[in-house]
Amino acid sequence: MRAVTVPNPGGPEALELSDVPEPTPGPGEVLIDVVAAGVNRADVLQRMGHYPPPPGAPAYLGLECSGRIAAVGEGVQTWHVGDQVCALLPGGGYAEKVAVAASALLPVPAGVSLVNAAALPEVACTVWSNVFLAGALQPEHTLLVHGGSSGIGTMAIQLAKAMGARVAVTAGSAHKLAVCRELGAEILVNYRDEDFVERVLDATDGRGADVILDNMGAKYLGRNVAALAPDGRLIVIGLQGGTRGELDLGALLRKRGTIYATSLRSRTEAEKAALVAGVGSYVWPLIEAGRVQPVIHARYPLEEAAEAHRVMEASTHVGKLLLTM
Amino acid sequence: MRAVTVPNPGGPEALELSDVPEPTPGPGEVLIDVVAAGVNRADVLQRMGHYPPPPGAPAYLGLECSGRIAAVGEGVQTWHVGDQVCALLPGGGYAEKVAVAASALLPVPAGVSLVNAAALPEVACTVWSNVFLAGALQPEHTLLVHGGSSGIGTMAIQLAKAMGARVAVTAGSAHKLAVCRELGAEILVNYRDEDFVERVLDATDGRGADVILDNMGAKYLGRNVAALAPDGRLIVIGLQGGTRGELDLGALLRKRGTIYATSLRSRTEAEKAALVAGVGSYVWPLIEAGRVQPVIHARYPLEEAAEAHRVMEASTHVGKLLLTM
Repeated sequence: MRAVTVPNPGGPEALELSDVPEPTPGPGEVLIDVVAAGVNRADVLQRMGHYPPPPGAPAYLGLECSGRIAAVGEGVQTWHVGDQVCALLPGGGYAEKVAVAASALLPVPAGVSLVNAAALPEVACTVWSNVFLAGALQPEHTLLVHGGSSGIGTMAIQLAKAMGARVAVTAGSAHKLAVCRELGAEILVNYRDEDFVERVLDATDGRGADVILDNMGAKYLGRNVAALAPDGRLIVIGLQGGTRGELDLGALLRKRGTIYATSLRSRTEAEKAALVAGVGSYVWPLIEAGRVQPVIHARYPLEEAAEAHRVMEASTHVGKLLLTM
Repeated sequence: MRAVTVPNPGGPEALELSDVPEPTPGPGEVLIDVVAAGVNRADVLQRMGHYPPPPGAPAYLGLECSGRIAAVGEGVQTWHVGDQVCALLPGGGYAEKVAVAASALLPVPAGVSLVNAAALPEVACTVWSNVFLAGALQPEHTLLVHGGSSGIGTMAIQLAKAMGARVAVTAGSAHKLAVCRELGAEILVNYRDEDFVERVLDATDGRGADVILDNMGAKYLGRNVAALAPDGRLIVIGLQGGTRGELDLGALLRKRGTIYATSLRSRTEAEKAALVAGVGSYVWPLIEAGRVQPVIHARYPLEEAAEAHRVMEASTHVGKLLLTM
């Protein structure tokens, strides 16, 4: 089969289309004929050699895909050959076939095309796990999403809005902020010329954001703590602004604040299975009701993966980038 | 009545014994004839002018006491004049009488003297709230307690041991560590000449501590993250080692770690009531069974509060310091 490989870590040009052996589904796994794969920022890090796949994961890039089940492994009861699915992957989505635990599958939601379903697993699981489970967002809360126009951002806005919470976002252009507003964000901050701390405190009568979903890490650490409400949760899922920053524990303590830093990929299969099941129960109905939709910037054929990575790194996109087989 | 007041913030000598008006119990409150009050490090901060009482709290020092109910306010059904109780206070324990919400009361546990019961509310609520509720300590976990011989430390060791967890402690002398060992700690680190990160990782096959209860803040921040197990929780309840420290969010993210910084005092009355009820249900039976005991270093008459503060600041004590009326 064909897969995107990275013989030597580096820039987008490091991605190569190669012929590789087809995977075989083990017990409890299914083999998927991949139709589309989502591109994630973590893929860029892996391409550069900074984010090796966890033990047992496929060697190739790709943390989510959609497609049709081509074969089922021993003991798989609930899924059958031909089923249209999408899946949260520990790796291997940039390929024509991938084997994955059946517990990581979700059906393609009604109203979403098979290709576009590839845009859902990673963002839905990330937002559900972090904003709703760890962050415990409530209808009366304010959620601040950094990078509101990213794939994760566009899902976070919609899910938070669907549960009745108020959403603040940061983004780097008027166009990106306009998309965030259409999706339901109320407090729109252009980080290039506005201070998100001041804007969020102003908009919440000085209270701040109950939950902050952050992709910037060190660069925003101090300001995120300043923008946090009492008992607030800062959830760091990306480190685009660096890893080491000064933390004022006194400020955090006065707010009884929490900082989580987490990723999905390194979790155990059992933890991911529980998460996928929760997403199926709570997020999928909102998608099928048309209240939450995948936001897709562009699709690229698998052989143009390098171009998709260039767009990801330029951050000019709004929503998800997909590769199609 | 007599109360310890702080006319001018400063050192231990700033504490003065004064005649002040007696408080009156409002609706839902009781008036306690105080028999003993616990001394907490937060009292030292308040004495220095760094920790003002929250709105509505008594102006005097003292976050916990024991005594007899002298009067009950409107609507109080479950407590009666003459009941022997101890209480978690938002302030006012360094006085002959204090009025407090009935929901903040606990009975004096069987087997504990009325005086010694003053040593329990703050440490039991702090440890229950942080190590067990926020930290979600499990029997298979390792808990690291900094300042293992403090009032909070001695309670944390015993409660963690009672539930079957493994306990590591840091302390500054062989004597303090010997007390910690007697209470149930297994991994004993003298912070003056040993590195707790190395010792904890060695003792846990490189895994680290699942929960860390920290009173040092900035000084230990980096090393606490280094000593944390995957999915671990670092809970900062004191800032004796400063407030601003460098946080490596990359290290935290690789462990999917959490940092909480919190205090009891600023929580709402409803939150404290829930906490006190939980302590009554889960901690009191362990005390009444003799498996967990208050560890008391010394008692001082109220007029020697300054001496108790000097001992607290010298950190030569093991367990709690009490004031008696």
